[in-house]
Amino acid sequence: MPEIRAVSVGIVEKGLPRGDKRRRHESRYQMVSRIRIFDEYASGLAGLDGYSHLIVAWWMDQEHEITLRIRPERPEVRPGMPEVGVFATRFPPRPNPLGLTVVELVKMSGQNLTVRGLDAWTGAPVIDVKPYDYYDIVKAPTVPAWFKRFWDERFSKKRYREIAPWLGP
Amino acid sequence: MPEIRAVSVGIVEKGLPRGDKRRRHESRYQMVSRIRIFDEYASGLAGLDGYSHLIVAWWMDQEHEITLRIRPERPEVRPGMPEVGVFATRFPPRPNPLGLTVVELVKMSGQNLTVRGLDAWTGAPVIDVKPYDYYDIVKAPTVPAWFKRFWDERFSKKRYREIAPWLGP
Repeated sequence: MPEIRAVSVGIVEKGLPRGDKRRRHESRYQMVSRIRIFDEYASGLAGLDGYSHLIVAWWMDQEHEITLRIRPERPEVRPGMPEVGVFATRFPPRPNPLGLTVVELVKMSGQNLTVRGLDAWTGAPVIDVKPYDYYDIVKAPTVPAWFKRFWDERFSKKRYREIAPWLGP
Repeated sequence: MPEIRAVSVGIVEKGLPRGDKRRRHESRYQMVSRIRIFDEYASGLAGLDGYSHLIVAWWMDQEHEITLRIRPERPEVRPGMPEVGVFATRFPPRPNPLGLTVVELVKMSGQNLTVRGLDAWTGAPVIDVKPYDYYDIVKAPTVPAWFKRFWDERFSKKRYREIAPWLGP
């Protein structure tokens, strides 16, 4: 099939520290990120601030490997995690390093979007911004045991529920 | 910024009729679509069937226009819809025609995924498949009045709730 070419419509001007490849970083809900949409696309933002949440499609430009099988966490950190395919995770080393992150829109000011919950690093290209709408809500999705364990041990702690109360089942 | 290149990891082998550019087609929840992941990436699927829902990232390869301002529906069909930016909609004529669709995974059989709810047409390239997990659930997102009206008039009808009971607020 033909190669697909995408353009950058914007950039993460302030995000997680560049060089830090960890995602789902604890701090992502404690900080705000800033995205700038480039001048030529800025008029496409009109009305976006009618939504409370967005899906940011960004390119994980620090990721240059492809790993089709992954263990979600090293055995010494969290024993017993199964090896799964990269498509069964949100991990970066995918055939296309497309990052998709649901974020809270804190403020839109001209062509600048201030968001909370973005796990993109500073300098990452943004290829699309979409409103989070009702078609994106699955009321009670099933997830595998390993993901549930991750969530219960990491996210369900009280402090996360306070940081990102809009999120999760 | 440098151009971004993506590869096709699979294809929509059976989808909405090619040539029909309508999305959010009523029938999308009444039919199943089939995605085939190409041989070289198939091992990346292991464990994906532990999830009930997926996010399919596909390329709207029938879309060749960019329209930064859009009226969500023609005045003669639904009067009073405001003109908004394309980033405030999920409409196709975006700078990058990236389609993102939350679907129900009906069956995974080898490298074939049978899904419900996909609004991609037959032959569309698939660039990524991601599990829908708890980080994708926003409990009560705010949407603009025009979207709410769309939803109430179209989706909230009883028959949709029966077709896709997993979906929506």
